[in-house]
Amino acid sequence: MDVTEDSVPVVETTTPQANGDGKFLNHNGIVQPLLTDLYQITMAYAYWKSGRIKDVAVFDLFFRQNPFQGEFTIFAGLDECLKFLQNFHYSDSDINYLRHTLPPSIEEEFFVFLRKLNAHDVTVYAIEEGSVTFPRVPLMRVEGPLIIVQILETTLLTLVNYASLMATNAARYRLAAGKKVRLLEFGLRRAQGPDGGLSASKYSYIGGFDGTSNVLAGKMFNIPVKGTHAHAYISSFSNFSDLQSKQMLMDKNTGKERDMLELAMQWREPLSELLDIMPDEASEGELTALISFAIAFPEGFIALVDTYDVKRSGLLNFCAVAMALNDLGYRAIGIRIDSGDLAYLSNKAREVFNKVAEKYNLPWFSTLQIMASNDINEETILSLNEQNHQIDCFAIGTHLVTCQRQPALGCVYKLVEINGTPRIKLSQDVVKVTMPGRKNAYRLYGADGHALIDLLQKSEECPPEVGVRVLCRHPFQESKRAYVIPTRVEPLYKEYWSKGEIRAHLPNLNEIRLRVQNSLQTIRQDIKRNLNPTPYKVSNIKTFS
Amino acid sequence: MDVTEDSVPVVETTTPQANGDGKFLNHNGIVQPLLTDLYQITMAYAYWKSGRIKDVAVFDLFFRQNPFQGEFTIFAGLDECLKFLQNFHYSDSDINYLRHTLPPSIEEEFFVFLRKLNAHDVTVYAIEEGSVTFPRVPLMRVEGPLIIVQILETTLLTLVNYASLMATNAARYRLAAGKKVRLLEFGLRRAQGPDGGLSASKYSYIGGFDGTSNVLAGKMFNIPVKGTHAHAYISSFSNFSDLQSKQMLMDKNTGKERDMLELAMQWREPLSELLDIMPDEASEGELTALISFAIAFPEGFIALVDTYDVKRSGLLNFCAVAMALNDLGYRAIGIRIDSGDLAYLSNKAREVFNKVAEKYNLPWFSTLQIMASNDINEETILSLNEQNHQIDCFAIGTHLVTCQRQPALGCVYKLVEINGTPRIKLSQDVVKVTMPGRKNAYRLYGADGHALIDLLQKSEECPPEVGVRVLCRHPFQESKRAYVIPTRVEPLYKEYWSKGEIRAHLPNLNEIRLRVQNSLQTIRQDIKRNLNPTPYKVSNIKTFS
Repeated sequence: MDVTEDSVPVVETTTPQANGDGKFLNHNGIVQPLLTDLYQITMAYAYWKSGRIKDVAVFDLFFRQNPFQGEFTIFAGLDECLKFLQNFHYSDSDINYLRHTLPPSIEEEFFVFLRKLNAHDVTVYAIEEGSVTFPRVPLMRVEGPLIIVQILETTLLTLVNYASLMATNAARYRLAAGKKVRLLEFGLRRAQGPDGGLSASKYSYIGGFDGTSNVLAGKMFNIPVKGTHAHAYISSFSNFSDLQSKQMLMDKNTGKERDMLELAMQWREPLSELLDIMPDEASEGELTALISFAIAFPEGFIALVDTYDVKRSGLLNFCAVAMALNDLGYRAIGIRIDSGDLAYLSNKAREVFNKVAEKYNLPWFSTLQIMASNDINEETILSLNEQNHQIDCFAIGTHLVTCQRQPALGCVYKLVEINGTPRIKLSQDVVKVTMPGRKNAYRLYGADGHALIDLLQKSEECPPEVGVRVLCRHPFQESKRAYVIPTRVEPLYKEYWSKGEIRAHLPNLNEIRLRVQNSLQTIRQDIKRNLNPTPYKVSNIKTFS
Repeated sequence: MDVTEDSVPVVETTTPQANGDGKFLNHNGIVQPLLTDLYQITMAYAYWKSGRIKDVAVFDLFFRQNPFQGEFTIFAGLDECLKFLQNFHYSDSDINYLRHTLPPSIEEEFFVFLRKLNAHDVTVYAIEEGSVTFPRVPLMRVEGPLIIVQILETTLLTLVNYASLMATNAARYRLAAGKKVRLLEFGLRRAQGPDGGLSASKYSYIGGFDGTSNVLAGKMFNIPVKGTHAHAYISSFSNFSDLQSKQMLMDKNTGKERDMLELAMQWREPLSELLDIMPDEASEGELTALISFAIAFPEGFIALVDTYDVKRSGLLNFCAVAMALNDLGYRAIGIRIDSGDLAYLSNKAREVFNKVAEKYNLPWFSTLQIMASNDINEETILSLNEQNHQIDCFAIGTHLVTCQRQPALGCVYKLVEINGTPRIKLSQDVVKVTMPGRKNAYRLYGADGHALIDLLQKSEECPPEVGVRVLCRHPFQESKRAYVIPTRVEPLYKEYWSKGEIRAHLPNLNEIRLRVQNSLQTIRQDIKRNLNPTPYKVSNIKTFS
């Protein structure tokens, strides 16, 4: 039932809430400086002890491989990172814990240093949240005093990794389902912890979902919340006596109360004939439950129809109640199917709705919503598409929120420059070699509006120019090269944080959500497809010619 | 480095903290009544509107299949569930949000009802947290007014599902690694959200891990925290000048400062000869980094040795610094290897340590710790066991915390009785059929102390007795049956919550951790093994004979 479709205005409400100091807060109170690996603090001490408090460093935050065997990734979590930077400081209780946890040989002055530490000298350049991104192109470039930029590593990774994984997963479901189908996130109960659930709701909305079942996510982020009833609701009713005589509903046409049980029972007979369903086979408990739910939500009646048997009970009972509601001037919304062959059952349901629509000349009955919700993943949707399903809305839980196909994104945070000198992490594994130095990134577009390549170059180099031919080489395979003449050049980085302040507009959730869809539109279809997608090109060597 | 091994007393400190009202708090502030699916609230309204506020119901919380293709599951999350019950109430702001989110037709009196709603009339029976459990045996039985026990569903599932999955995963790693090896959870950066990380630290500790890298988990739950340094630390040093002359360390024997750089350089030559490693090939930056770290943590020196080359650089540099420390009266702790062939490299390292130990008559050098930390999962550990690795400690991240092999446990919450009448959820899928009615569960033990079978029976039936033969039948396959004469009968349920109060002792984290190991010991080895484990028997039909 779309209980919020009309009642909640979805505008501007995800703008971050500022606290009393004018600072923005992370959505979860446990996002704090100690939410980090201990080695960040031990390294900080060793740097401090070595006298390296004035050293400055540049770190790149990036991933090496797209998730889900795909060829793109949606960047998310930046907003939370910036709020974390804004609030970064160790409390007295943090310092006290560290003092008792680190070895007694730690000099007291280090704790004084930590107590005063903040992120004001850090500068963060980042790609816009909600953008499509690709392997090895840093999502964020974090610069500043070595000690603090090192300390930020774990928390920034925690805030970006799952957020981006989740937004990417959601965007893939959206691509699979197409634009017309509604997608709802129903995963809270199976999520990895309470915040796994809350983050899943937030970032699946960003990725292209239309709503969530998670009420707290609705309250905190103003995401539309949706929900109907569970099998337990249906099976808690045995027979008409469970209505306890509460079976009256106001007729919108006359303003008088009418008996919904009586009306529904009147409709059961002609409908059972029309639909060729034996009324005796339909469950009385189910009919009772649906009547009670319709009385509670006459304007938002969606019925779960598979508790007993969709074809022999659920559809007949739903239609009887929907027609009774119609008598009183209300239009039912639709049904939910939570088990069985969803392609077949959705077609069966549509057939039933069409018959009723035709027989009683109620065209809207043909367009009743069919929601499906049983263990759905990206592949299920693609398979249902091939079977010409009649589903209007998917409610998706476990596979969406836990990203079952790949439950972690491998973002890393690598030192690329120290005191102006580029650093390289060597590795026997060539894909693990990092690109040294402070870099900028540009996305080059072709004449048809599609992105052609992402170009990484040293930050002191001149940016590529529109209409000027660029020779782009593969970062690790010298032989792979391509000439590109960009029609448009997009600098990917903006300065988001410097001198202790957020420097760019922080978009709200709906703006980020729109950015995802717009950004995806600039990517060629073959890069986005589910099966054997084409890799997008990223180059770190260019020659103008 | 075991920075907390000696400095933090691991006793009693995980006892939940009470707030000002004498109530316990959930570890994460976002655990609150709105952390639920909307349909719980819409159902509540429909029940309320139908006049069913006095109906009473019994729900079972259980899972249908063990995770990770295993045959056991550790139950965790009960403590958080009880705290949630204790604090359950909707705030004014919650009610306000719901009022604007639900359809305008909702009667105002329902919000008055919700505002006053609490969990005081709910009774919860549960299996002890940390117990080994099996499919279809309810972990919790939740009884009370239909509306409130239905409303609790989503949050209870959220709190139990990931906690139990994580504890089970950790217990499996512990079984694979054996009792002597230390296991550390290092997964925060790849966890599913900030709380995914915090919950992972907590429940992997319960499952048998020895510590975590997550500092906040250390602070909140008093779990030992561990950490050394990252590759970035090593590669941030290029040469000896990076020490900025801070190379002095106090000699514990004389109290005088000695030059660590000089000492380590003196040791490099004889060691390179002994170990047949060219000193020129060893990285100067790495040696500098290790000296600086040893000066910062002379009593807790663990070195990451694979930034350049374990055999040609890391081991020589580590030994030189460890011997320099030894000259000053300090004993190094060991090394960490984060890449490459861990079985081979750990053996190589042990060989080197043995040579040094023998040559300089320092037996403790042979027992230096070798920590491994590269993308380790249960299978890696089993494979390393077969290759006779020399690893003392595994630091495990991604695969542990995201439970990559199966990222969700499918706990469900099913209505089994209403107003004293058993309810059954029928399904075409026989394993989805629930066992109706209010049930008790007993674990029957054999003479050798091993658990034989879990027996489910109606709560009004007499419990099985020691020495009395019981005929146990398979719940769905009539032909499967077994006679059991129990030597010990353990009632699995305790009353944990009733009349608004926690009724049983809430064990601290260390007690729950111990319970896991004790409970696992009562389970036969073939049920616990990784490959083709034997299913444990659960029966719901019994006949005394």
